[in-house]
Amino acid sequence: MGKSLPKRSEDYSKWYNELVVKADLAENSAVRGCMVIKPYGYAIWEKMQAELDRMFKETGHQNAYFPLFVPKSLFEAEEKNAEGFAKECAVVTHYRLQNDPDNPGKLRVDPNAKLEEELVVRPTSEAIIWSTYKGWIQSYRDLPLLINQWANVVRWEMRTRLFLRTAEFLWQEGHTAHATKQEALEEAEQMNNVYADFVENFMAIPVIKGLKSESERFAGADETYCIEALMQDGKALQAGTSHFLGQNFAKAFDVKFTSKEGKQEYVWATSWGVSTRLMGALIMTHSDDQGLVLPPNLAPNQVVVVPIYKSEEQFDAITAIVNEMMKELRSLGVTVKYDQRDTLRPGAKFAQHELQGVPLRIAVGARDLENGTVELARRDTLTKETTSIEGIGAKVKLLLEEIQSSLYKRAFEYRDSHITKVNSFEEFKEVLESKGGFIAAHWDGTMETEDKIKELTKATIRCIPLDQEAEVGSCVFTGKPSSKRVLFAKAY
Amino acid sequence: MGKSLPKRSEDYSKWYNELVVKADLAENSAVRGCMVIKPYGYAIWEKMQAELDRMFKETGHQNAYFPLFVPKSLFEAEEKNAEGFAKECAVVTHYRLQNDPDNPGKLRVDPNAKLEEELVVRPTSEAIIWSTYKGWIQSYRDLPLLINQWANVVRWEMRTRLFLRTAEFLWQEGHTAHATKQEALEEAEQMNNVYADFVENFMAIPVIKGLKSESERFAGADETYCIEALMQDGKALQAGTSHFLGQNFAKAFDVKFTSKEGKQEYVWATSWGVSTRLMGALIMTHSDDQGLVLPPNLAPNQVVVVPIYKSEEQFDAITAIVNEMMKELRSLGVTVKYDQRDTLRPGAKFAQHELQGVPLRIAVGARDLENGTVELARRDTLTKETTSIEGIGAKVKLLLEEIQSSLYKRAFEYRDSHITKVNSFEEFKEVLESKGGFIAAHWDGTMETEDKIKELTKATIRCIPLDQEAEVGSCVFTGKPSSKRVLFAKAY
Repeated sequence: MGKSLPKRSEDYSKWYNELVVKADLAENSAVRGCMVIKPYGYAIWEKMQAELDRMFKETGHQNAYFPLFVPKSLFEAEEKNAEGFAKECAVVTHYRLQNDPDNPGKLRVDPNAKLEEELVVRPTSEAIIWSTYKGWIQSYRDLPLLINQWANVVRWEMRTRLFLRTAEFLWQEGHTAHATKQEALEEAEQMNNVYADFVENFMAIPVIKGLKSESERFAGADETYCIEALMQDGKALQAGTSHFLGQNFAKAFDVKFTSKEGKQEYVWATSWGVSTRLMGALIMTHSDDQGLVLPPNLAPNQVVVVPIYKSEEQFDAITAIVNEMMKELRSLGVTVKYDQRDTLRPGAKFAQHELQGVPLRIAVGARDLENGTVELARRDTLTKETTSIEGIGAKVKLLLEEIQSSLYKRAFEYRDSHITKVNSFEEFKEVLESKGGFIAAHWDGTMETEDKIKELTKATIRCIPLDQEAEVGSCVFTGKPSSKRVLFAKAY
Repeated sequence: MGKSLPKRSEDYSKWYNELVVKADLAENSAVRGCMVIKPYGYAIWEKMQAELDRMFKETGHQNAYFPLFVPKSLFEAEEKNAEGFAKECAVVTHYRLQNDPDNPGKLRVDPNAKLEEELVVRPTSEAIIWSTYKGWIQSYRDLPLLINQWANVVRWEMRTRLFLRTAEFLWQEGHTAHATKQEALEEAEQMNNVYADFVENFMAIPVIKGLKSESERFAGADETYCIEALMQDGKALQAGTSHFLGQNFAKAFDVKFTSKEGKQEYVWATSWGVSTRLMGALIMTHSDDQGLVLPPNLAPNQVVVVPIYKSEEQFDAITAIVNEMMKELRSLGVTVKYDQRDTLRPGAKFAQHELQGVPLRIAVGARDLENGTVELARRDTLTKETTSIEGIGAKVKLLLEEIQSSLYKRAFEYRDSHITKVNSFEEFKEVLESKGGFIAAHWDGTMETEDKIKELTKATIRCIPLDQEAEVGSCVFTGKPSSKRVLFAKAY
């Protein structure tokens, strides 16, 4: 097959890159930094989308769609936000190509078709959305406004990696407007909780909920909630963020409402998003040296059935049994595929399904026909057992649930054993280099210290955890007083 | 409410524009030619997407995602396609903004961040997709490749109208690769049939299936299948197209495969798409002077319930009954919303739901409580009846089916009575001006005649219908021999 992967222990980064390509999830495109999401990868993303969309609607949000382009004058209206994204903006300057007089058959940009005002390809949509909300919000009756958008965005990153950091990526961005600060804060925290719920219970990835430090905050936000996950190589990955935007965008776009008391007030805002980056988190949390490992919730095929036969008669007899079994599985809500390709041997099929992370594989051969059995193979543990075909539906259902929860458990135990409390900067550096993971340390709360630590160690403050007890201590770097620990880590 | 619309008979175009905005479907944005799709409009589009997506998957297609940008050198590779879209391309030339030294607080394009090669914002994705397929297709075993993408595209149109023609729009584009010409032709026709099935049976809009004449064909296609619908003002609207691309893109991007016989051959291709333009077709097929009329299949809320009460006790008693009724309706798969806003009077609610095309409205008042009745109002016929609350579920279900089929029937009768056979150019012009609709006329098959007729009348050949009998005749314009009639019309 030529499909075997580098070992994680030898080159984690190469293992990741090759896994993404060989498991048919995504590949680099002809456009610098932009990826092609292949059908198998996209099918996993669709499962994420469907569940998130359901959760957003359940919490009262509606979908809408806003323009891809942001006129420069709107883009720059909220200065902090503009400053934060200015360096990575793709800019449309012309609206026409023409035949190139110097190169027959080739095209060039038509110099006469220069736009009066340049258009920024959205790196995020606060500006275009808040310029729209101005027309939608007049009174407290128009609030709250709870909107989400599924869209592509572009951030011209210099160093890109499939799913983790790409110039174009797919995401959802929620943008809400509220009458009070309190309500907006609650919304921001609620959506961070929705993300945590989704990532933990649907993707089987444990996360820590927290707040960002000022320097890691979203440009234009007063507060950023986040969920942070830990990858197998000890690096952290920000899996989702939810921002309390205060009145910054309302002021930049002059969005006021008449309160119940008849007063004109600026609107309070939130925005929140998760992206195809979650695919990277999924891969780097569960997978192994054999390839992708998918939690059953996210598997395009939860079960694949492979027939093992030597004659057409055997194939027909096996297929008859398999069809019965698949009917039973589907009636229980299990997604199952019969891999009856005659262009591949069973061993090659096994390898492919292993590489692609199918949670359960069922093999049915001639001896199984005689004995009324099938062979069940678990992807997560790579264990096999021969089991009766009687009651296979219930058994598979149970196994899928077990795989889902055991993947979470495994990831949780890894994560939990990689949160290390340190009390000196020596210890900080030592743990960071030897063990990695999250380092729980006291910090004096200043940007200077944060910057200095980053400069010296490449570790950043991933979050200030929400659920922790106050603890008097002194900053691991400056020794100044501190009231709680924050989590540092190297991060994706 | 200030929500009343112009009459269709007085100003159809103004009626359309105002309806789109007042029914909360979409609005113009701060970006020239780009629209904002509002939550209510987007909810309708989501229903279209879900059904189409189901139909694509049922016919063996998988979703994937390809980059938003097309490098100029790839864009120009298939010359006809490039030529067809060159004049309406948004072009990214720079990847960074910087502080404008002349305008503190403002940004400008960083002149040092000019791209080496300009990027075209995709107006359609054949080029980027076929440059990718080159890496995916080696052998006949890799075929057919059946892929669809849901995406935004940009075509810099000079005259835009909400949903009908916008600079950015949402669509799906299928791109398939096949080993034989025959198989590709069958795929192109199959997908045109899928579109026809969807538009007729789901959207209740009758269409004519046909082929485009050479001058109306997609740039880069050897044949374009289409479905054509007729709007209430007698103008045609192209609702979907499916292209047989021959080997044009395979040759432009050098995509060959090894056949079963071991020969190297170019791949055969199709592409097919429908877009948010379908929203325009929906509106202009069914709606009336009171506003939008939605077929139940596409209605975000098929039923809205409005309580009519004078006291809180009445409201509570009505609500208890309504909750029971809604439970019954939901168990039958009906989507129903209880409009219990206390900020609007029942009359205002009625007007809003009428404007927004809710298929069935149920009002429940104090007298209904006594009598065990409700008032049912149909949006399509604007008729009301008082009916027993006993068995309301079955009754509503039946009514929704009746509305769906009667909307189709009404549109079909209108369309059918607006296909006029003409045998002279005088008659052609007369019918076009006085009656509109499709004109079935003989045509000599030349582009010159087609162009001349367009110049003189603004009518174009909408399609050469697929299911018609051969009929010997002479061209309505030149008198030259012709073997079948084609359909002319003025078109959106």
